[in-house]
Amino acid sequence: MHNLAIAQEDEVYYLDDLHVGQRFTSGRLEIDADQIRAFAEAFDPQPFHLDDEAARHTLFGGLAASGWHTAALSMRLQVCGGLPIAGGIVGRRGEIEWPRPTRPGDVLYVESEIVAIETSKSHPDRGRVSVRSETRNQGEEIVQVATMTLVVPRRGS
Amino acid sequence: MHNLAIAQEDEVYYLDDLHVGQRFTSGRLEIDADQIRAFAEAFDPQPFHLDDEAARHTLFGGLAASGWHTAALSMRLQVCGGLPIAGGIVGRRGEIEWPRPTRPGDVLYVESEIVAIETSKSHPDRGRVSVRSETRNQGEEIVQVATMTLVVPRRGS
Repeated sequence: MHNLAIAQEDEVYYLDDLHVGQRFTSGRLEIDADQIRAFAEAFDPQPFHLDDEAARHTLFGGLAASGWHTAALSMRLQVCGGLPIAGGIVGRRGEIEWPRPTRPGDVLYVESEIVAIETSKSHPDRGRVSVRSETRNQGEEIVQVATMTLVVPRRGS
Repeated sequence: MHNLAIAQEDEVYYLDDLHVGQRFTSGRLEIDADQIRAFAEAFDPQPFHLDDEAARHTLFGGLAASGWHTAALSMRLQVCGGLPIAGGIVGRRGEIEWPRPTRPGDVLYVESEIVAIETSKSHPDRGRVSVRSETRNQGEEIVQVATMTLVVPRRGS
């Protein structure tokens, strides 16, 4: 994961630079079974996220990452160059869906698309931008779809 | 966090045991600045989640946990007795909102309410249950509202 750098200031997009339909693609990162178990021990200690054998007897059919782990990794991919928004990625609300689980050995990346832009009447120096992002694995299977609303500053604000 | 045990089998609720309006309250856990920074380094390395001084010059006005950290901690509180669903807490999709950030020293708990129950025609042994959960801090301020749809087995399935 350490080859993913945070976007530099001169590469970032302000509200003025964005348009609906614009797309961004992140780098890639691989997830292994130890990472899946460590996240689960800290935040989601359920058998199907902790133990491959126990997971075989559940809906998951084998060790699967917590959906919140997939969400956190997707955020890392977006923060580290995958969605170079000025002022950072600051979400207030959104929708999230996990069509299938992330598995040990998966190599994930995120494709983000700007789906709505709304300027703020009360804060003319910023706006709200809705971003739909798909997190995919090495087989192009979608493990997460999220649509989040971000606060994005205007250029010069 | 280690005083939070996973719900024992004899305390769990099956689909048949749930009704709309039913509420569950989790235990509590405290979050400190080191945990906020560690999560951010791993998953959301933005200045307002890493450094209090840098955060003062942003919308956050001081060190704030990543929203995904609040989500992960809320999951822990639900998994560790806060939402004792048979078969575990298996979400497929949902909505999430962070009205205000989680701060160092916050003591969080989750109140969950069953808001919809739908039996499955294709899988009569299970159903979908929508749960609206509010994560609150020690001042009763809401730091997260999430409505997730869970897969819940019928008793005897």
